[in-house]
Amino acid sequence: MSELSRVSGVPVPSVKYYLREGLLPAGRRAAANQADYGDEHVARLRLIRALLDVGGLSVASAREVLAAVDDEGRPLASVFDVAQRSVSRADLYSVRTPGVAEERIDALVAERNWHVSPGNPGRIGAAGVVNAFLHINRPELVDLLDRYADAAEIVAQADLAAVAGQEDVAGMAETVVAGTVLGDAMFAALRRMAQEHVTSRLYPVSADSSAAASHPGPDDPAPRTAASRTSTPPTWTP
Amino acid sequence: MSELSRVSGVPVPSVKYYLREGLLPAGRRAAANQADYGDEHVARLRLIRALLDVGGLSVASAREVLAAVDDEGRPLASVFDVAQRSVSRADLYSVRTPGVAEERIDALVAERNWHVSPGNPGRIGAAGVVNAFLHINRPELVDLLDRYADAAEIVAQADLAAVAGQEDVAGMAETVVAGTVLGDAMFAALRRMAQEHVTSRLYPVSADSSAAASHPGPDDPAPRTAASRTSTPPTWTP
Repeated sequence: MSELSRVSGVPVPSVKYYLREGLLPAGRRAAANQADYGDEHVARLRLIRALLDVGGLSVASAREVLAAVDDEGRPLASVFDVAQRSVSRADLYSVRTPGVAEERIDALVAERNWHVSPGNPGRIGAAGVVNAFLHINRPELVDLLDRYADAAEIVAQADLAAVAGQEDVAGMAETVVAGTVLGDAMFAALRRMAQEHVTSRLYPVSADSSAAASHPGPDDPAPRTAASRTSTPPTWTP
Repeated sequence: MSELSRVSGVPVPSVKYYLREGLLPAGRRAAANQADYGDEHVARLRLIRALLDVGGLSVASAREVLAAVDDEGRPLASVFDVAQRSVSRADLYSVRTPGVAEERIDALVAERNWHVSPGNPGRIGAAGVVNAFLHINRPELVDLLDRYADAAEIVAQADLAAVAGQEDVAGMAETVVAGTVLGDAMFAALRRMAQEHVTSRLYPVSADSSAAASHPGPDDPAPRTAASRTSTPPTWTP
């Protein structure tokens, strides 16, 4: 156990907790009071920490997705389903918003010939966000749906290509789980980077004020003189 | 106040709370013990609820982004920065992971000629996710960075086009805030939909088991006989 802790970098009390909670399989019993742990335990511990610390999953959600990884006969679609639900906020992704918003999402699915079941958490969540955009009177944000869907197709095809490239069943399931759970964070991060890039091209900030404008602290408000949003953006073609 | 609550659908105690916390500006004082509220208060209440309930912001974060919206001289880049930080988990998006992961993100920025400051929360978060993928030995997920970045560019250009289409400064700032805070959820939702679609094409489930496979409940495990992930996927070109 102490060796497992040392190699994995996970403290002993945490290792014991994951064993007790069923996230980590028990070691092979070696002697009366000893268990042997192998490379697969080290790998599992690292996956547990990635799901909890970077993916932000609860221990209960992590247990569910790891059970799906270990269930080798489970269809991939079902592994995706469990992974998607684990990382979807229950309030947004499970409460339907019938009406105009759902109709807008239904139309998107029909136009794109997407095969998406009515209970897909994303389908429910997308309608919830559209409903909010309509409620705050920002129809221009609803109109982004199509470009977002273009981007989502690129990401989903990349996700599945990574899965299909795996040599074995266990690798495929782990790729589904790690990619789905951590992929939201990866995309959100890249979106923030791309937003800064595109903003800097459309609304350039003058050199002397750029540092302050990029990182205004609470006591360091961005300068009002340069690159105000009232200035006309230059024409820019991506 | 009761009229404001009725029209906006927000309960009176919540309206009072938002007033006290500085999220909602005070009404115009009409008599000794009365205040007048206008359409702008109704609109602000709806925006507050969208940020809290759908965007998942804390009251403190919502106050910060609303202050940025109201600060009409603030450059757009700074409004984006405040909005991005409000919706970025502090643990992932502010703790650097120096080393190979950061170098991979630096290389991505250089290859794409992206203008992204070192302190951009997405830049820090993307390195954190890459670090996790490397740690759990899933390099195939790191290799998705380029496709994810393609998709992020599409989304960011759409985001900025929606902002540029606004007629006034207040509208631009509101579009930045609502689009940035709720856009993460919208994209994540569409990614789940597209994942189901692409999975269904690559790993089709036979008709009799598709309902169970799409929505396995805890007592209703997906069937092991059909569409197991061990089956060879058909060739499919997007």
